[in-house]
Amino acid sequence: MVIFDITTSVDGFVAGPNASLENPLGEGGMQLHDWATVTRAWRERHGMGGGESNADSDLIAESLTRQGALIMGRRMFSGGSGPWEDDPNRDGWWGDDPPFHNPVFVLTNHSRETVTKDEGTTFTFVTDGIEAALEQARAAAADKDVFVVGGAETVQQYLAAGLIDEFEIHVAPMLLGAGTQLFGELGANLPQVELDTVVSSPAATHVRYRVVK
Amino acid sequence: MVIFDITTSVDGFVAGPNASLENPLGEGGMQLHDWATVTRAWRERHGMGGGESNADSDLIAESLTRQGALIMGRRMFSGGSGPWEDDPNRDGWWGDDPPFHNPVFVLTNHSRETVTKDEGTTFTFVTDGIEAALEQARAAAADKDVFVVGGAETVQQYLAAGLIDEFEIHVAPMLLGAGTQLFGELGANLPQVELDTVVSSPAATHVRYRVVK
Repeated sequence: MVIFDITTSVDGFVAGPNASLENPLGEGGMQLHDWATVTRAWRERHGMGGGESNADSDLIAESLTRQGALIMGRRMFSGGSGPWEDDPNRDGWWGDDPPFHNPVFVLTNHSRETVTKDEGTTFTFVTDGIEAALEQARAAAADKDVFVVGGAETVQQYLAAGLIDEFEIHVAPMLLGAGTQLFGELGANLPQVELDTVVSSPAATHVRYRVVK
Repeated sequence: MVIFDITTSVDGFVAGPNASLENPLGEGGMQLHDWATVTRAWRERHGMGGGESNADSDLIAESLTRQGALIMGRRMFSGGSGPWEDDPNRDGWWGDDPPFHNPVFVLTNHSRETVTKDEGTTFTFVTDGIEAALEQARAAAADKDVFVVGGAETVQQYLAAGLIDEFEIHVAPMLLGAGTQLFGELGANLPQVELDTVVSSPAATHVRYRVVK
């Protein structure tokens, strides 16, 4: 299956305004992820102890077991948006041990060698489009799922192309007022969706949809 | 209390593209409200028998008992957007028995006499801004709640002005891709919100927030 799974504000933003290399999620954007960063499952994946064991944590843990490969846009690889995003020498902003622990396929116009990090994370750069990236990701994922992890533009491309099977939106209880919208204007010929499940905690409302094929 | 309570698509639209007098909710916009129009409570309010008695119906029935007065923008009164929206001779598009059964305050630049309809619906035209309309609506509502019923621009004005106490978003399981967004870009200085309750059915996910004062 091909999935996206992303956090938005109540008003539909995945990042606040004025994103930069220092602040890739823009003003107020880090807070969107507070529901996740306090959980035991998220902290464990990021090499940290402690954290809350709650419904939010269980949901992250389950999602992680399903991941076999990831797809991201070049800005998510490089961090925020800016003149550095196409710099072929820039080694992402994820450090030596990115939290993906799976093969990651990065959509870009600039070919470069695959970058290998610790704990099973590799970044492979795909220059021939979203379907080619998906084909590679499916092969790498084997019997697990392919997660389109962002940013918004990448998610929109896969959704509009009818390539998404399921998606989950984690709605954080906050308004951002400006920034990057998850959906924006997707245009016509959109897939039909059905509600799958809703899980709710004070920290976020997790709404899962199936795309009707 | 001052409340809004509105239905959006998963991608945050309250109306589809190409709204007109004949199709005020735009292409695909009527379907947003399928979750409501099949319920017993909605049908009863619109003078029709039958309908489903379910969680969605209970939620509508409870909301109706709380309403003491309503506020709407001029386009919602006139129907859609177009050259007719400021026509002072146009008597709305709600017919002789609008489903409001309460005093309705219409935000407009054109003063006109109050219009009285059947079953307790009155349309009073307020030309001196959103706070003046709210003051009149509060007086009319007495110990009940004031509902800001739309459209999106009106909701945004009240929210950005810090005049909303609670709001509920009914998310219909569909993508519209274009049209009128509920929130759009609200800008800075937004109120803080907290999750209140989540009620979910296959037909819609109802998420209620409190504004932190």
